[in-house]
Parts: sequence; structure tokens; C-alpha cells
Amino acid sequence: MKAEIISIGDELLLGQVIDTNSAWIGQELNKLGVQVHHKSTIGDAREVLLKTLSESAERSDIIVMTGGLGPTKDDLTKHILCEFFETKLVQNDAVLAWVQSIFSKRNLPMLQSNNEQALVPESCEVLWNRNGTAPGMYFLQNGKAFISMPGVPFEMKCIFEEEVIPKLKKQFSFPSIIHRTLLTASIGESFLAKKIANIEDALPAHIKLAYLPSVGAVRLRLSAYGKNTEVLALELNPIVDSLYHTIGEYIFGEEEETLAQVVGKLLQQNNKTVATAESCTGGYLAHMITSIAGSSAYYKGSILAYDNAIKENILQVDASILLQHGAVSEACVKAMATHVRTLMQTDYAIATSGIAGPTGGTDEKPVGTVWIAIATPEHCFAKVFNMGDHRGRTIERTALMGLDLLRKELRTIK
Amino acid sequence: MKAEIISIGDELLLGQVIDTNSAWIGQELNKLGVQVHHKSTIGDAREVLLKTLSESAERSDIIVMTGGLGPTKDDLTKHILCEFFETKLVQNDAVLAWVQSIFSKRNLPMLQSNNEQALVPESCEVLWNRNGTAPGMYFLQNGKAFISMPGVPFEMKCIFEEEVIPKLKKQFSFPSIIHRTLLTASIGESFLAKKIANIEDALPAHIKLAYLPSVGAVRLRLSAYGKNTEVLALELNPIVDSLYHTIGEYIFGEEEETLAQVVGKLLQQNNKTVATAESCTGGYLAHMITSIAGSSAYYKGSILAYDNAIKENILQVDASILLQHGAVSEACVKAMATHVRTLMQTDYAIATSGIAGPTGGTDEKPVGTVWIAIATPEHCFAKVFNMGDHRGRTIERTALMGLDLLRKELRTIK
Repeated sequence: MKAEIISIGDELLLGQVIDTNSAWIGQELNKLGVQVHHKSTIGDAREVLLKTLSESAERSDIIVMTGGLGPTKDDLTKHILCEFFETKLVQNDAVLAWVQSIFSKRNLPMLQSNNEQALVPESCEVLWNRNGTAPGMYFLQNGKAFISMPGVPFEMKCIFEEEVIPKLKKQFSFPSIIHRTLLTASIGESFLAKKIANIEDALPAHIKLAYLPSVGAVRLRLSAYGKNTEVLALELNPIVDSLYHTIGEYIFGEEEETLAQVVGKLLQQNNKTVATAESCTGGYLAHMITSIAGSSAYYKGSILAYDNAIKENILQVDASILLQHGAVSEACVKAMATHVRTLMQTDYAIATSGIAGPTGGTDEKPVGTVWIAIATPEHCFAKVFNMGDHRGRTIERTALMGLDLLRKELRTIK
Repeated sequence: MKAEIISIGDELLLGQVIDTNSAWIGQELNKLGVQVHHKSTIGDAREVLLKTLSESAERSDIIVMTGGLGPTKDDLTKHILCEFFETKLVQNDAVLAWVQSIFSKRNLPMLQSNNEQALVPESCEVLWNRNGTAPGMYFLQNGKAFISMPGVPFEMKCIFEEEVIPKLKKQFSFPSIIHRTLLTASIGESFLAKKIANIEDALPAHIKLAYLPSVGAVRLRLSAYGKNTEVLALELNPIVDSLYHTIGEYIFGEEEETLAQVVGKLLQQNNKTVATAESCTGGYLAHMITSIAGSSAYYKGSILAYDNAIKENILQVDASILLQHGAVSEACVKAMATHVRTLMQTDYAIATSGIAGPTGGTDEKPVGTVWIAIATPEHCFAKVFNMGDHRGRTIERTALMGLDLLRKELRTIK
């Protein structure tokens, strides 16, 4: 069973709008066990859509289109679908009544172009659009399903969930596919690959492993294809176990979690709190923590000491430390962590100080040099890293590394 | 001149990663005056890429590929390109030295898979990757350019700007096109459109106006198409002037500037400093300011007072204010701004306090209610906003609005 997605709209080709629809549809089809093997993005143009439709009819069983259904002149999809399926537009009274009710509720006059939204191809099944005026369409031809939906994300998602999925399930019998995703931090893609080469090499043909890297983290995704999801799940279990056995220290979570969520959960489970004292991360560490809804339960605040005077006056870092070792030093970052923990009366604290660049580096402390300290109820320790020479990534990597160091501490709580 | 984009990677088809690269590339090609007329997304699979390459060679002059160049086994692009262009992989010593230097700088051992990143197709020109280990590739065949770049956005963008654009400009003669972009904040797209409707209606056919909205800001891009860039530039000047005349109060900058850059420049020009006191923005306001290289010249630091105890103890907000008005109030946010300005001995201060949600809203102060205060050498004022019910967007909008309020203050400096 193969699916493909056709996204229609000049704004997508121009890059004025980022196509998030097709990723969402890909995920939904994947959950059904249907593999999306191709996506196309094309403009609002007759010939190209006709050609793309012919090609997709050759290579796919389910063809999902979004876009080009609006009321304006550049929206051509409906007319081209009539041409492709050799049918004609007819008025759908239920849709017309729905469109009229929307306009009367908003006290807006109906334009001719709005009336025309109730015209649908005769040979299609109408897909009800609860959130807008343009209905979706479902065509069946030679056992293949062609679905056309508006491009507005919340309209499209609702139509897909409520109308498309039930129709597809009635039409097709889907194969099974399941995924397990392990999230790792503090290790690069190639090092991971080397550590788990034996596990990867031993995978049977119907189980795939993918590396999905981002700044400071790599997601490992196992996908198993077969007939029975329960059997597949049982097959994945020992593979996941052996991954934990081999690279467990780097795995911070599974599926869609973020490191900040995992750290937040560990803090809440143990009824602990944390504060931060930031220099080079400039508020980004705090931002990662506070991006999580509910973080006020375990996060008290931060002193962002960008200026050394703030380190001295508010974080009470000894002037002698700054003079002797500088702000980017083990002594400074430990003093920052220790003091902010006391000041904010938390169980834990993270402190960062480094040279994000592009200037400020020296031979001894080149751009990218970063010290991170963790203060706990028992002790305070610091580690030094080189995060590279890109300012933005140094900030991001340092914040992630700070969270990962805290995560490892929290896992030792008895 | 027609271009197309091929995005390669199973993770894109599965929808686990949203393809932002192709929108960015579409914008960049558009700036050159090249129309992207087709995008495909395909998996890491030999036959499909070969077929897509053949098709694109038929229909496009410039073919831009991203993805599939990593060091792991599922990355096949380089091998398939060799097959398509009937060439073989050879070692590039400069790339090998570069990869080695990256690993030695980070004190990491080289793996065989890292060495292999220095293997490139013999017939291509290497596109230098300043930010990573996988080089890009540039092939010319029958007057058409085929470009292959890694999928990691910051690597790809740098390669495209520094390596691809100059090569394309040498290879092809592009039509003349010039752009002027005005950056606005604190006003929505439809309100802007209404205010400048007369200007837009009066534009000649060869000058287009595009609205490019993002969270809290709308970019207005004028594009002029013609034969002579100098003539076009002269034509754009009076249009830009009339836009400044009509909506000047909302325009914070031009071209690629960010609001944080503009504010930083104004502070430096006037030899002034700023500090922040954040609650609901959770460090994001500080992060926006410190994302700018050199911000330590004018930014001293922040007190992130997520917990009310920190507002009381460190920012010395009167307990009576918190009791009577709550933390999300004019009195609280003004006290925060005033005190942090004194504490950090700066000329200006910005303070934020609000309900980012999803919980914590009341009838009187629903989710999205945000107070922002600006303290200056002369006075302190605060404004209240409703930033909507999406946590991430409320944080982002509040930070941008804080910066925009400060920008307006700084513009009044005599």
C-alpha cells in the first residue's frame, strides 16, 4: 500500500508558506501503516496538476492533495479534478446551506464566489468541512483513492481525521507498521552508529533503523513492517533493550519527549526544584526549561549575569576568582551555581559561562570554550567543553548539555 | 529559467521532520529572479532518486537537492549521484584535512565513516561546508546545474549563500530583479494591507508587493522586475518613501535586520545600556537580545523571577503589590523594571509578566494577558496586551513587543 501527497499552491513554491500539512499527513498515514513514498509540491497550474495526477495514479494507491480550493481565481483544483475524472460540477445543496449559515452567522454578505464553493464534482463523495466553506472531495478510480482537501491546516486536519480516515479504513485493508524512537543527547551521530553497529547489522530486513540528528541530539527511530502490530512490538522489544544496554547512558527519553520535559518530569517525580545562573547561554537555558507548560512547579528563576559586575554583586562570585581565573573558569561557574542555589532556595542549580563568540576567544580559551556547573544538595561539580565556533549553536548545545548533566544527576536520586 | 527542489530523506516522508529547507531555498532563488516550479520529496532510495533526477533534467535548469549526505548507512545520495553522472568517488584532500581538523579541535577520534565524508564524485565541484563535515556538490550537465547539499539547515544555508549563489551567477544570466524589504512589528497583516491599499493599488505591473508574516512581525517585500537594476532602484525609492510616510511608526528596520539588532544598534549609537526582568517570557527576551554577537556591550543581564518569591526577594516587589494586584499587574511589572534598572545600573530596563498558559487564566486575566514595562532614565510606563492562547507564541510576541516598546523609546533620544 503506497501513498503520495500533492501540495498545491504558488505560495509553497515561493517559500512564503512552509508546508507543515504534508508532514502531518505523512505521520497520520504512517500510523495507519501506509507508507508515503512521494511528495510533490506544484503551483496552481492546470497542465502540471493533470500530469502529476496521471503519474500518481501509476505509482500510488492513495493520493492526498491539499490546496487550491479557495474562493479566488487562482484556485483551480476543483476544475482540474473534473477534467481528470471526466465529470462535471454540480451544486451540493447541503454544502450550500452550510456556507450560507456560516455567512449569516458572521453577518457577512455572500459573494458569487462563495456560492460557487457549493459546486462539487458529480462523481466524488463530499468530505464535510466543519471549519470552513470549501468541502473536501473523495474520488475512487480503479481501486485507488484520490483525496482533495483545503490547504488551511486546521480545516484539513479535521477533514482528514473525521472523514478521510474512516473512508480509507472501509476501502482498504492496511498492513501493520510500528515505530519506537529513542532520544539521545551528548553523543554524535557517527559515534552512536559505531557503538550500535552490531545491533544495526543484525536487524532483519523488515526492521529499519534511522538516525535523525538535530543540534545536540540524535533521535534513533526503529520501524518494523509486517502483518501484526503485536508481533512487531514483541520483535522490537529485545532490540530496544539491547540499545539501552549498549548506549543507555546517552538515551534521555523516548518518542516525542524533549530533554527539558524529561528533566522537568524527573524533578516533579522527586519533588525537587531547580534554578539557573547563566552567562554565555544568555537566557536560552531558562527559555528551554520554561517552554514546558507547568514548569513553574519546579523552576524558580535565573540570574542572567552577562556583565561581570552582576556575577560579582548579585551572584557573589569573588572578585579574586574573576581576576585570577576569569569568568570562563571552573571556579567562577561553580560559584555561580552554588550561590544561585542558595539565593533561590532550590535543590539543584545549573550555571553556564563560556565564550559564544564570534569574538572574545584567546589561545588558552578559544571561542566555544564553555564551563557548566551543577550544584546539588550534596556537591557541586563543573565540566568544560568546546562547543564549536557558531554562536547560536554554542548557546543551544550548552543549554542542552546543562540539562543533560542535571538529568544524569537526577537519575541517581534513590 | 526554471528551478526545482528535491528533498531527500525518509524522515520527511514519515513527517518526523518538517521540511523548512525547501521554503528557504524557494525564497532565495526567487530573490535571484528564478522561479521554483516543482518540489519533490523522496526517500533514501536508489531507483526513485535516479528517476527523479532524469525527470528534473527534462523540466528544469537548476536542480537543488538536500539531504542524504550524512555519514551513516541510510545516506545514499552521493553514491546515486555518481551513478547518474557516470563518475566515481575520489578522495578530496582538502575536505579530508577539514574533517580531520574538526575532529582534532573537538578532541574526538576519527571514524572510518568520517573519513568517507571526504570522498566526492570526480566530476563535481566541491561546495565547501564551513559548518559541517559533509561537503556539497555542484554538477554541470548539458547546461543544467545540479546542486546537492546536506539537509542540516544551518549547513545548507551557509553553503547555498557562500558557494551556490556565486556559482549560479557565473553560470547563468539572471533577469534583473531587485527587492526592498521593510520590517514591521506590532500590527497585523490585514490592518497593514488596509492602511497601504492605495499605495498597493497604484503599483505598476512590474513591481509586486508581498506580505510575509511571522509571529509578531510582517515583512513587506517590494520586488521590481526589469532590465536595469539602477532604474529599478530609482523606481522603488518613492514607493518606499510613501510606505514610511503611511506606516512609518510600525517599521522597525529593513532587509534582514532583527528587532533585537535594531534595538542593539540604537543602544550602542547612544551609548546606553539595558537590563531585563522577566517572568512570563522565561528567558526568551534575554535570549533574543543575547543572540546578537556583541550584545555584551549594551546588555548587562536579567533577573528571571519565575517564582513570586524571587520577585519579592531579589526584585523587591512589595508583598502588598503581589497580594493586592497579583504578579500580572501594572504595579508589579513597573516595580520589576524600576528595580532591575537600579540593581544592574543600566539606562533602560524591560520587564514582562503575564499568563502564558495553558493554565492559570481567570475571567479577569485570561490566558494571554501580558503586562510589559519599560523603565527609562526619565520615567517608567507599562502596557497590557492579550497575546492569545498559544504558550509559545505568547512568549515570542511578548519578547518582540518588549523590544519594540524599547525601540520607540530609544528613537526619542535627542
